[in-house]
Amino acid sequence: MDFDEFRRHGHAFVDWMADYLETVEDRPVRPQVEPGEIARQLPSSPPDSPEAMADIFADFENILLPGMVNWQHPSFFAFFTANSSPPSVLAEMLTATLGAQCMMWETSPAATELETRVLDWLRQMCGLPGPDEGGFHGVIQDTASSAILCAILTARERATDWAANVKGLKSTPPLAVYTSIETHSSTEKSVKIAGLGADALRKIATTDDFGMDPKALRAAVEADIAAGIIPACVIASIGATGVGAVDPLEPIGQLCREHGIFLHIDSAWAGSAFILPEKHWMLEGIDYADSLVLNPHKWLFTNFDCSAHYVRDPDALIRTLTILPDYLKHANQGDVIDYRDWGIALGRRFRALKLWFVIRSYGVSGLQSMLRAHIAHTVWLAQEIEDDKGFTLAAPRRLSLIAFRYVAGNVEPEEEDRRTDLLAKTLNDSGRLYVTPTTVKGRRAIRFNIGQTYTERHHVEAAWKDIKETAAALFAD
Amino acid sequence: MDFDEFRRHGHAFVDWMADYLETVEDRPVRPQVEPGEIARQLPSSPPDSPEAMADIFADFENILLPGMVNWQHPSFFAFFTANSSPPSVLAEMLTATLGAQCMMWETSPAATELETRVLDWLRQMCGLPGPDEGGFHGVIQDTASSAILCAILTARERATDWAANVKGLKSTPPLAVYTSIETHSSTEKSVKIAGLGADALRKIATTDDFGMDPKALRAAVEADIAAGIIPACVIASIGATGVGAVDPLEPIGQLCREHGIFLHIDSAWAGSAFILPEKHWMLEGIDYADSLVLNPHKWLFTNFDCSAHYVRDPDALIRTLTILPDYLKHANQGDVIDYRDWGIALGRRFRALKLWFVIRSYGVSGLQSMLRAHIAHTVWLAQEIEDDKGFTLAAPRRLSLIAFRYVAGNVEPEEEDRRTDLLAKTLNDSGRLYVTPTTVKGRRAIRFNIGQTYTERHHVEAAWKDIKETAAALFAD
Repeated sequence: MDFDEFRRHGHAFVDWMADYLETVEDRPVRPQVEPGEIARQLPSSPPDSPEAMADIFADFENILLPGMVNWQHPSFFAFFTANSSPPSVLAEMLTATLGAQCMMWETSPAATELETRVLDWLRQMCGLPGPDEGGFHGVIQDTASSAILCAILTARERATDWAANVKGLKSTPPLAVYTSIETHSSTEKSVKIAGLGADALRKIATTDDFGMDPKALRAAVEADIAAGIIPACVIASIGATGVGAVDPLEPIGQLCREHGIFLHIDSAWAGSAFILPEKHWMLEGIDYADSLVLNPHKWLFTNFDCSAHYVRDPDALIRTLTILPDYLKHANQGDVIDYRDWGIALGRRFRALKLWFVIRSYGVSGLQSMLRAHIAHTVWLAQEIEDDKGFTLAAPRRLSLIAFRYVAGNVEPEEEDRRTDLLAKTLNDSGRLYVTPTTVKGRRAIRFNIGQTYTERHHVEAAWKDIKETAAALFAD
Repeated sequence: MDFDEFRRHGHAFVDWMADYLETVEDRPVRPQVEPGEIARQLPSSPPDSPEAMADIFADFENILLPGMVNWQHPSFFAFFTANSSPPSVLAEMLTATLGAQCMMWETSPAATELETRVLDWLRQMCGLPGPDEGGFHGVIQDTASSAILCAILTARERATDWAANVKGLKSTPPLAVYTSIETHSSTEKSVKIAGLGADALRKIATTDDFGMDPKALRAAVEADIAAGIIPACVIASIGATGVGAVDPLEPIGQLCREHGIFLHIDSAWAGSAFILPEKHWMLEGIDYADSLVLNPHKWLFTNFDCSAHYVRDPDALIRTLTILPDYLKHANQGDVIDYRDWGIALGRRFRALKLWFVIRSYGVSGLQSMLRAHIAHTVWLAQEIEDDKGFTLAAPRRLSLIAFRYVAGNVEPEEEDRRTDLLAKTLNDSGRLYVTPTTVKGRRAIRFNIGQTYTERHHVEAAWKDIKETAAALFAD
């Protein structure tokens, strides 16, 4: 393909992209496909000769697209959103064109320095302390899972004075990691990857508001110390995945400081709301934290993947992960930031560009308005649910996340659970909206998150109407 | 930004993208910037109000671009290329627009099934055995580093019957990992991440051709067994980073089978050449391998990141990494592939699309021609170097990779090293081409890789002329 052809197809693609985003709500959020249905339409062997872009694109549109979940659909209320935005997509076009590999300063000076700068912008927007006051240095990771892994690895090394890094865990005392029962499953995965074993993870009970119980944490830490086990790391959540639980940082942080425990804050989703001054209460106790992650690719209109990872002591992270073969040495070694030493993978995309485009395009005030609108929609929906005798909230609303159950008809809990699940399935199968069936305190619930860029009040109102009407039709008894 | 504005800017961007790619060789490959020079031009705080896209784009062009290494420049001969192509960039535009999070089948049925299919296409193109004959299942990772980490983790679990996963490495016998002194540094990083400690890595000596010495490997394995240490994993290379060493798979594989050692093949760069039947000799012994990685983002015209990871036993990988909280359960659990369990991160971009676009756009025969051209250019350059008394190859050419030294003037080795380094630095500072200074068997060398999509013979001829003239001007004695 020569550059003229590229230009021609590029223009056609842009028109398609604008049309797609403008009309995405006419498509089902979630496709009705059976396992294998897409694969069956794809040839089992690659073509030997070149194929025309028109044919490739036609297959994209006719075979693949009907089998995709439309994540940018305004009625996507499942999981957490992976919200994007026009300026972010534009930036991704440039990133793809440059095709830069941003593993270190030498291979991408501007990308490196922009990453440092734009993560410092985001830090300021979130009201987090900066490097000058002993605060946070930023790096972009692919996902919050990777940030949690980095935290656990750094904690492992700090607890063993870097003996684990050199001589391995066989040479060190046993270690333990703590997190609440509400916390994201990637903590367990990271504990396993780090060689500590799943048994080293203590799942701490929560209080009534789903936050980690500091008393239970203290008891677990003290029991471990008594048993000769070193408490290495606490992963606390601000806005945990299940129902958005906020762990009380202040007492957790005090305990961590008392025992020299590394404290990582997983605010992958809720962290975007730190840009709202009225939500800063969630950060009370942040001074105790060693690291924190928040994902602009979840709720700050920046294409996946873009996970902002803040660490107080980058030297500890670097010492944990660094390697330096001859072919990666360069003249400015030590004077510049080589982000490859701040994460798991060596290769890195130019991910700072899209975040820079987004922050500048909307401005801080614009981003604040968009988040406040999502939260206002959720407040409205939560009130509707509370006012309706057929439904009940399964947990208190957190920001733009709720979970609710269908409770009409005065039936047994098992039947309520069955109906709630059937309602979720029926709604999802309709393609009109997409929610997540889940379990809250042992009972089935429908998890509903409002964070899609293009979601407006009327989409939420339509969803609520749909939920009520679908339930009424299903359970007409 | 509304969709009309997006459309307008998108068209302007496409024109810029085509212009950039068409004229990238008029820019320096590598910028002349000092640390901090870019950062100083960027405001220290984010804007509160929205800024116009024209202003943002102007800063991209005027501030950032002059500080970027132009990785798609045809005279980029450094590291390994991260080559891209027009169809790959087009696919990235669609991927960014869909903004799909492809963590599991449920959230992206078509992306999941395309990933399986297109990785099977690539497997066939490479002549690797398929699932039907006990061969390889594919998954896309971000980088080969992550594939190596997955291999070492799976090996760790297999060697300990999954005890490391549950009870941690404290409960298991000590383990060892083996790789040659030529192998990529990410192996050491992975060994540390996995909790084995750097001391668990045995760096095996090489024979004269830079390949791992199977006798030295056997001696190391037997010494470990005698000492009560379990040999868990061998990371062998096909086309190691330094000078492209090819480890002899056949004797290494036999040894691994004898002792139940997990064998991973790192062919991150050279693996693209498996699509050339005349290079299949490198794969002799592949039947012994448990996993293999090759990076289409290095030398198969597919945007970074796209690393093809092949595993013989996906169940072992999944068992090593899986987690299953309620909110990730779905109706087709177990009947479909959930790629989130095949790698470190939970979130995943739709990366199969660009590889599908590339394979179809060029066809297998087109891709073969492009790689053969790169290799032919390198053969030509290697011959030029051999024929020139002022230069010598520091290692035999491998595919499209060479390393050479400046040896004119009958000077001491230290002076040769100094001159070779100065030559590399002068060339790189010129911005006309970009090479990597490195060390080969204790001596300084210039590492030169030909793999950029737009590199033609005349670029290589110009580079060679430049190298000779620069050396002559520098060392006129």
